[in-house]
Amino acid sequence: MGDQEVKLLGVWASVFSKRVEIALKMKGINYEFVVQDLSNKSPELLQHNPIHKKVPVLLHKGKPVCESLIILEYIDETWKSGPSILPEDPYARATARFWAKFIDDKCHPAIWKITGSQGEEREKLIEEATGHLTTLENELQGKRFFGGDEIGLVDIAGNFIALWLGVLLELVGIQLLTKEKFPKLCEWVDDYLNSSIIKETLPAREELLAFFRSWFQQSK
Amino acid sequence: MGDQEVKLLGVWASVFSKRVEIALKMKGINYEFVVQDLSNKSPELLQHNPIHKKVPVLLHKGKPVCESLIILEYIDETWKSGPSILPEDPYARATARFWAKFIDDKCHPAIWKITGSQGEEREKLIEEATGHLTTLENELQGKRFFGGDEIGLVDIAGNFIALWLGVLLELVGIQLLTKEKFPKLCEWVDDYLNSSIIKETLPAREELLAFFRSWFQQSK
Repeated sequence: MGDQEVKLLGVWASVFSKRVEIALKMKGINYEFVVQDLSNKSPELLQHNPIHKKVPVLLHKGKPVCESLIILEYIDETWKSGPSILPEDPYARATARFWAKFIDDKCHPAIWKITGSQGEEREKLIEEATGHLTTLENELQGKRFFGGDEIGLVDIAGNFIALWLGVLLELVGIQLLTKEKFPKLCEWVDDYLNSSIIKETLPAREELLAFFRSWFQQSK
Repeated sequence: MGDQEVKLLGVWASVFSKRVEIALKMKGINYEFVVQDLSNKSPELLQHNPIHKKVPVLLHKGKPVCESLIILEYIDETWKSGPSILPEDPYARATARFWAKFIDDKCHPAIWKITGSQGEEREKLIEEATGHLTTLENELQGKRFFGGDEIGLVDIAGNFIALWLGVLLELVGIQLLTKEKFPKLCEWVDDYLNSSIIKETLPAREELLAFFRSWFQQSK
């Protein structure tokens, strides 16, 4: 299958674009990264994701696949060589899908809402986010990665927890993911960020911090 | 595989529970339906879905699977006999997952919000919902079902559009899904509701109407 026929419409600071890049690199697929300007959406993006008009969009032989978790499953089903992103056993697959959805439905909104909140509302949101992280902490017990010994769907979906969460909360003066409260999650963050593909794919922390600092200032 | 080992924790009026029942019937799996009282959640529900505390929960040999779309994939992957719920081709699978997610993320909330809105806000929400239905109308062109000639993931996920949507909107005096505006979707609704498994699985319209009428009155 021609690797040259894989294009990714994405943004370097997007947690969702980075998920797809991690999966493509895990599978050893060469791809062209086509940077998108979300303040001035390209005809290519609007053509290939007319419903949501969002990144990432994976173009494979010209055919678009949208929504990052759906793209990860597509990559896993299309390129059978290389490490598996989802396990083989149906129950283990359902469990992985459950946690990936939990991260998207619960963890992302909780953390983002904290950054835009104040006072009592913020306290409540921190409590809510702490609950979600405790759930993930428990799920990791006895395992190195959510996927077991190797990085899988939930780890890739969890790149937000590993990097973006700390960056966003630092900008509003909050530290949530501490070794005292979440020893297992913090160990996972270390192992994850230091594994070779993740290290070469995710942006440098300082750059991400600078990007979101400027972004927060502009949105005020 | 022992059919007797399949239990479904559900609610008869739940669009999500019904999705799972449709899939189990399509595959010819015998199952025990364990009715849940959501105003007084059972220890069994809280034990097996401690994160969301919601129906449906599929128990297969005592192991729980939660979230209706994840359960549908689990059923398809576990019971290979019987008609397929997802197509085989990875691109067609990604497309089915995209539309199922679109129904959950966009159509459900838009319709529910209409029922709780008034005046100008309601007009805007109707416009939004009309946009989503137009998107589905276009997606159906040239096909009998979203799954092609047979019912598949998107059709099962779309049971809300086929039955609940009309019931909910009738209770607030709105007709949205008309033959004039959505000829293809209305044809799909007819074909879908009259196909044998759907007919025997979905609740009678009048009962659903009575249930939600009483439910709306109680929530006022």
